Amino acid sequence: MSFLKLYDYPRGPYPARVRIALGEKGLQSQVESVFVDLRTGAHKKPDFLTKNYSGTLPVLEIEPGLFIGECTAITEYIDNLDGNPILTGKSPKEKAIIHMMNRRAEIELLDPISVYFHHGTPGLGPHVEIYQNKEWGLHQLAKSIKGMHYFDSFLKGQPYVAGQSFSMADITVIGGLIFASLLKVPIPEECEALLEWYARMQNRASFINRLDF
Amino acid sequence: MSFLKLYDYPRGPYPARVRIALGEKGLQSQVESVFVDLRTGAHKKPDFLTKNYSGTLPVLEIEPGLFIGECTAITEYIDNLDGNPILTGKSPKEKAIIHMMNRRAEIELLDPISVYFHHGTPGLGPHVEIYQNKEWGLHQLAKSIKGMHYFDSFLKGQPYVAGQSFSMADITVIGGLIFASLLKVPIPEECEALLEWYARMQNRASFINRLDF
Ligand SMILES: N[C@@H](CCC(=O)N[C@@H](CS)C(=O)NCC(=O)O)C(=O)O
Ligand SMILES: N[C@@H](CCC(=O)N[C@@H](CS)C(=O)NCC(=O)O)C(=O)O
Repeated sequence: MSFLKLYDYPRGPYPARVRIALGEKGLQSQVESVFVDLRTGAHKKPDFLTKNYSGTLPVLEIEPGLFIGECTAITEYIDNLDGNPILTGKSPKEKAIIHMMNRRAEIELLDPISVYFHHGTPGLGPHVEIYQNKEWGLHQLAKSIKGMHYFDSFLKGQPYVAGQSFSMADITVIGGLIFASLLKVPIPEECEALLEWYARMQNRASFINRLDF
Repeated sequence: MSFLKLYDYPRGPYPARVRIALGEKGLQSQVESVFVDLRTGAHKKPDFLTKNYSGTLPVLEIEPGLFIGECTAITEYIDNLDGNPILTGKSPKEKAIIHMMNRRAEIELLDPISVYFHHGTPGLGPHVEIYQNKEWGLHQLAKSIKGMHYFDSFLKGQPYVAGQSFSMADITVIGGLIFASLLKVPIPEECEALLEWYARMQNRASFINRLDF
């Protein structure tokens, strides 16, 4: 592999998903990080929008001029490069469960807390947040807390979000909890299984070293 | 394969994604469809929520008691069953592009038009739509129209949504346009490439026969 450029904002929860995935695959050293400043709205300017129409980070440039947006897509790429996928599943059944739980983690936790940030708080500031719907933002915050309870009850019965081993779905829940912590939204105390799981996740090398490049 | 039960609402745009994928794979006859009546809110009742926490259709039961929600996850499953994925990509690069375009089709077209239905119109009726945010719904309608223009410009340069061949990403855009048509939201006339592509898609056997089971 000769060329991987990651357009990102290292402390952002979505870029964290890719940074953790790279760590799990031992690929961090193969990637050059290009800082895109969310606070100035660089990700909504024409130059960046030609890389990713949706105007979000992260984006992985996998060949000169070939830009992959969306964490799930980027994770599929880096996980399959060596022919030995450990994050996205090997069998059809594993792929199904991991993709279901990954998308559920987005829908029920990470995406709503992101919407809360952009709509229920000042977000990235008035020059970036040109349309806000506060009521929707607060509604999404409530949804994300409900999502924490859901994952808590789920993790009472199994060690990882998609079952017996670590996967992309765990990384997406981690992204949600990183976002919650940035916004000072606490994990409810009674979510003991979720808290125990998160403590385990925070001990993984890929979590600890995620900002090291 | 001995057991595939599809919990669905045959005319729904998301179930259509799975029905088309089954058709592309020649698997329609292997599946038993179980009707879940969205109009009565059957998908928000406890019995269904134990199958899919998110309370949406479709759900594929792949083993007795093992329920897979989320169209993307279900498509990964059925596409990989025979070891010859034709919808979700074979190489890491194909997987990356297909998953990116698939997720983009959700984010920019299908999901916003669905939010418009549930928030900007009476949706499934007051007994199902217990919270509505009309302003958000109308904002999402505008986003989906913008999404049509995006896919139009994209399809000017290539025959399919993810490049040179048909994939899961085409199916997701088809889902968006099926939803638009149900809501009588027209594809803008000037979107000639999108209209030409959609005419081609509507001629595929998997589209024509999608309600035949
Ligand atoms: N669906 C995207 C979402 C990415 C996303 O929302 N990224 C954040 C960075 S943490 C972002 O770019 N936010 C800026 C904005 O929405 O204005 C993915 O999975 O990659
Ligand atoms: N993210 C889900 C969305 C599925 C979805 O929204 N399905 C519609 C049926 S067309 C539904 O169940 N809507 C009912 C509701 O949201 O109340 C997927 O990809 O499967």
